[in-house]
Amino acid sequence: MHGIGLSPFDHPLLSGLLGDVEVGGELSASADIVAILAFESALARAEAAHGIIPATAAERIGEGCAGFAPDFDALRSAVAIDGVVVPDLVRQLRAAVGGADAAYVHFGATSQDAVDTSLMLRLKRTAVLFDARLAALISRLDALDGRFGAAAMMGQTRMQPAIAITAGDRLRAWRDPLAAARGRLAALVFPLQFGGAAGTLEKFDGKGAAVRATLAGELGLTDTRQWHSGRAPILDIGHALALISGSLGKIGQDIALMAQNGEEIALSGGGGSSAMPHKQNPVAAEALVTLARFNATLAGGLHQSMVHEQERSGAAWTLEWMILPQMALACGSGLQLAGKLLASVRRLGNLPL
Amino acid sequence: MHGIGLSPFDHPLLSGLLGDVEVGGELSASADIVAILAFESALARAEAAHGIIPATAAERIGEGCAGFAPDFDALRSAVAIDGVVVPDLVRQLRAAVGGADAAYVHFGATSQDAVDTSLMLRLKRTAVLFDARLAALISRLDALDGRFGAAAMMGQTRMQPAIAITAGDRLRAWRDPLAAARGRLAALVFPLQFGGAAGTLEKFDGKGAAVRATLAGELGLTDTRQWHSGRAPILDIGHALALISGSLGKIGQDIALMAQNGEEIALSGGGGSSAMPHKQNPVAAEALVTLARFNATLAGGLHQSMVHEQERSGAAWTLEWMILPQMALACGSGLQLAGKLLASVRRLGNLPL
Amino acid sequence: MHGIGLSPFDHPLLSGLLGDVEVGGELSASADIVAILAFESALARAEAAHGIIPATAAERIGEGCAGFAPDFDALRSAVAIDGVVVPDLVRQLRAAVGGADAAYVHFGATSQDAVDTSLMLRLKRTAVLFDARLAALISRLDALDGRFGAAAMMGQTRMQPAIAITAGDRLRAWRDPLAAARGRLAALVFPLQFGGAAGTLEKFDGKGAAVRATLAGELGLTDTRQWHSGRAPILDIGHALALISGSLGKIGQDIALMAQNGEEIALSGGGGSSAMPHKQNPVAAEALVTLARFNATLAGGLHQSMVHEQERSGAAWTLEWMILPQMALACGSGLQLAGKLLASVRRLGNLPL
Amino acid sequence: MHGIGLSPFDHPLLSGLLGDVEVGGELSASADIVAILAFESALARAEAAHGIIPATAAERIGEGCAGFAPDFDALRSAVAIDGVVVPDLVRQLRAAVGGADAAYVHFGATSQDAVDTSLMLRLKRTAVLFDARLAALISRLDALDGRFGAAAMMGQTRMQPAIAITAGDRLRAWRDPLAAARGRLAALVFPLQFGGAAGTLEKFDGKGAAVRATLAGELGLTDTRQWHSGRAPILDIGHALALISGSLGKIGQDIALMAQNGEEIALSGGGGSSAMPHKQNPVAAEALVTLARFNATLAGGLHQSMVHEQERSGAAWTLEWMILPQMALACGSGLQLAGKLLASVRRLGNLPL
Repeated sequence: MHGIGLSPFDHPLLSGLLGDVEVGGELSASADIVAILAFESALARAEAAHGIIPATAAERIGEGCAGFAPDFDALRSAVAIDGVVVPDLVRQLRAAVGGADAAYVHFGATSQDAVDTSLMLRLKRTAVLFDARLAALISRLDALDGRFGAAAMMGQTRMQPAIAITAGDRLRAWRDPLAAARGRLAALVFPLQFGGAAGTLEKFDGKGAAVRATLAGELGLTDTRQWHSGRAPILDIGHALALISGSLGKIGQDIALMAQNGEEIALSGGGGSSAMPHKQNPVAAEALVTLARFNATLAGGLHQSMVHEQERSGAAWTLEWMILPQMALACGSGLQLAGKLLASVRRLGNLPL
Repeated sequence: MHGIGLSPFDHPLLSGLLGDVEVGGELSASADIVAILAFESALARAEAAHGIIPATAAERIGEGCAGFAPDFDALRSAVAIDGVVVPDLVRQLRAAVGGADAAYVHFGATSQDAVDTSLMLRLKRTAVLFDARLAALISRLDALDGRFGAAAMMGQTRMQPAIAITAGDRLRAWRDPLAAARGRLAALVFPLQFGGAAGTLEKFDGKGAAVRATLAGELGLTDTRQWHSGRAPILDIGHALALISGSLGKIGQDIALMAQNGEEIALSGGGGSSAMPHKQNPVAAEALVTLARFNATLAGGLHQSMVHEQERSGAAWTLEWMILPQMALACGSGLQLAGKLLASVRRLGNLPL
Repeated sequence: MHGIGLSPFDHPLLSGLLGDVEVGGELSASADIVAILAFESALARAEAAHGIIPATAAERIGEGCAGFAPDFDALRSAVAIDGVVVPDLVRQLRAAVGGADAAYVHFGATSQDAVDTSLMLRLKRTAVLFDARLAALISRLDALDGRFGAAAMMGQTRMQPAIAITAGDRLRAWRDPLAAARGRLAALVFPLQFGGAAGTLEKFDGKGAAVRATLAGELGLTDTRQWHSGRAPILDIGHALALISGSLGKIGQDIALMAQNGEEIALSGGGGSSAMPHKQNPVAAEALVTLARFNATLAGGLHQSMVHEQERSGAAWTLEWMILPQMALACGSGLQLAGKLLASVRRLGNLPL
Repeated sequence: MHGIGLSPFDHPLLSGLLGDVEVGGELSASADIVAILAFESALARAEAAHGIIPATAAERIGEGCAGFAPDFDALRSAVAIDGVVVPDLVRQLRAAVGGADAAYVHFGATSQDAVDTSLMLRLKRTAVLFDARLAALISRLDALDGRFGAAAMMGQTRMQPAIAITAGDRLRAWRDPLAAARGRLAALVFPLQFGGAAGTLEKFDGKGAAVRATLAGELGLTDTRQWHSGRAPILDIGHALALISGSLGKIGQDIALMAQNGEEIALSGGGGSSAMPHKQNPVAAEALVTLARFNATLAGGLHQSMVHEQERSGAAWTLEWMILPQMALACGSGLQLAGKLLASVRRLGNLPL
């Protein structure tokens, strides 16, 4: 019973509206395994560089990872027992590596090191993707500003007509938070996770920090003391995702309001109704509001996962797994939809230029 | 990009722990389509019974629905535009029915009628399933009470030793909310949705309520005025799901606490660690806490969807779609896990009997 | 530093909009103490009736409660240490009762028995109050229906014009959930809490259930086994409160949308702007949306408190204290505001009758 | 009906545990009015500096603000109508200033400019306060590390014994997020709000940005384009508050777990029980968990307020008012409680040094 599309983001039907192939790819189980193998391989190299394990072992582990095709069924069954994929994956990988070198696979690391690092590798790429999408949205808004920015429209405060503004004023209120979001993404930290069984890198005889620094360099992640139970990096990413969704939700709400009587905005496309063929529903605009409220909800749940007890928490960690990927998907989905929505704008403002 | 397992509940790996084949089946896209077709077919019969459409048309529509194999790719593309599957499904179904009868497909109904009714049909079956799982859990708890109920253990309040209690006292605190949940499920109302374009059944010349009553009877749902924008039935179901998850989360938290030093409970199985082979982690107990906090989060999000504007809301409705199915899956997953967890109890209480 | 109005509901300024004198009264610290004393007094009577304590002690305790003026400063200081008011309140009350009878105060009970019971006594009265307010709202809606129900207006779905409806159709969509809420309030259970130190009524030699039944009868609460760690009664009440707020939020959102250009509704009053004297902001309508989203948020937090560990939880219980009273205040505030808002409607629908 | 202590933070009893005099002071209605007057006074000066209003008017307005004692009852009544205090406050202030200069009060500004700026002024001071509290907590942790850091204790992962660590390892896991939080607070931006009626500073003939820069300088806030509907500054502050609360909640959870059997930690003080005089409940530790979950809940609600429609939203803005102050109070309360809790630690780790 896997892969039947229970998520709104890979649902056979709903993914037509909400699906995001690129983010979905990064957050798939396959990508997770690939990234965990990258971690294991880089770990061996870093350990060999510091004389913790033989260089030949690192080489052999690297080859093992490169050619490795995991038994997904066995992994899935093991997750049912272990609650995490790493123990069985390491077992399989050791079998693939074989011989004496097998024992050096995952040396000194713990499951959380592999899983959190895999997540960070993929979220870092996702952030790059989102930055590009934000840049494209900003270009679209600039283009709209160029075409319609001078058009008059009525400013609305507390849902009442206020004073005259221009379409450009409204566009800038949409644009500013997206531009700021680019800076926000650029400032995000994607740290390596590396602490060993209980966070103390107890198997490295004082070389733990050096191995960690090398490993971080290998993987292009930030070197920092382990954060097994200190989850601010997760929360900061979730915050950025929810803020982007919220900013897009504001745009969606505005467009749905502007489209009410068709005076302030004209959109091409728009959804049909099974009861009323004449309708042109602002489906993408509504979906942006939905995704904003969805990610707002999940942002609160993610904060609940801050209470990681003791050295490492199973319950709080698993809660992150259930929440953060959805937030990334919702953010990505919104960025895509906003692009389509803005591309469909044929007129803005109440008056022709 | 569909069906790659982005939900925790059909994720190729995580579903080993959290997957629920039965609930997943009910909440799959296929089951949704089947239930929508059941709605369309029953609608035609009910309308024919009241002389709204010809009896032959109803027959023909029933046959059309029975043999109908929708073009999922077309549906998915249409959802991207319409935000809902019904318009294109009706289009396809009309083509399948053909001839003059095609026009009677979906007569007088709106997308929300079909979608909400499909959901209720499937949630009603899911509730029956959950009731059976609850009954099995209660039996397990009773059996544990029979074996270990007299064993002494220390009652704990505010996470400190309080006074001596028995394992049976603790078991009863787990059992009572589950027994109450059965009553809660039995009291849930699963209403037919039927209102037409704007909720007024404007195409039925005063026969709307009669058609609705017949249709509800056909489908085994509760007959009630349309609730297009009044979403209490959705919220009540979500509340019941979250309460069950919360009650199971309490059990999970207790078992994780009891298992800390192995004195108060002995479990068979338990998860391994990639760093520490000696460990027996109470993975299922932790997962119950996770699922409780997950559904608590979503319960709040579902309440946000109460603000359905005007006659029917796209934004709030879509938010329900993103939240409620996950709540049902999390509830089902927890019920399964709790069964496994309780089945693994080998000893309860501090002292042998 | 108490009583400076940090809650939105007793804030020196914001309470002008959101304050609710009646609910605030029930949820004040004074009302809590009065209700705890009612519990202690009734407990003594019930225990005397079953021969647990001397009848003269019960009488003396009743007199002691009647004339008791607690030292609030001492209580407050004690809460800083104990996390709950009852230990010091019992100490003070024993001093007031004096002599040998003092030892019978609070006999066999625990803090949670007193605090939860006090809450239920006051929430039960609050529910009666809310029922009356709902009835008044329904009357107002009926009156509006009588005056404007036949007026034509455009039905709106997905924020787009759909088909013509009447103002009466819209009014019924507002009314139905409020009518249902009355039934919901009537079905709520307000249980006595009575379990003793660890939930086992261990000091009553088998008479515990009988004492409990008598006590429940004395206090007008439902007799049920203790629910120290099974918090469904709290959640059910929170659910009802959030549903009412959500239903009112839908009305508020509709009215704010109808008031946009003044065509579909005319309101008297309405808020002024510091920048634009011409504006008539639909402040009460907006506030209903705010309160709905506020209570939706808190509903999720309340579900988090379901994970009460072991026999009694300090952390989860305190979380309830921080959330549920606010939900009752937000619900009450919304009911008041909706009353004012509906009273200000001077016209509904697009066309004069 | 104001000031009866309905907030957990100024409740006559519960504030003994949760009250925070300093944060409460900043978030009181009086402090709000004082800060709004500081805005109005500085606005006049900035406008005079740029020749928008006469210098004498600015002087007169400054004097008026200095000696101004608002009529709170009138303000409160006006909030009931306007939904915001500024229109009536400006009216009162104009009356106090008198003469021709009165018209220059609040010139070119809107309510949201005054209210948001007042909030930022006070939150900026609150952040300084929190930084000092964090520094004190870190000192306490360092001192504990000095005394007990070398003591052995069992590392716990997934709530099971893992490998031996030292108390110092645990202390560092508590300390790191607090040290990071100081950097986070230092990086927060507290922007001036200044946009006028619909965000366009339409009354300043191209001098708007210059006036804004001067005003920001006067008030010690960051100069930025108005953010009437772009609420990231609010969300960033809420995020920082919730992260601190979450980090403290993790400490509280750990200490409650360590205190279970008294082996890993010894605390002086601790709460009593009305039923069990022998108990020493870790009340402050539990409260930290409560406050973490409370702020996690509110963080989600605050994200809901991102959907500010059009130029300025009443509904979303008011939602912020109901949520953000509570988050600051909960954060402050937790910082105080954590200080007391850490001060009460008499021993850490399982073994004497």
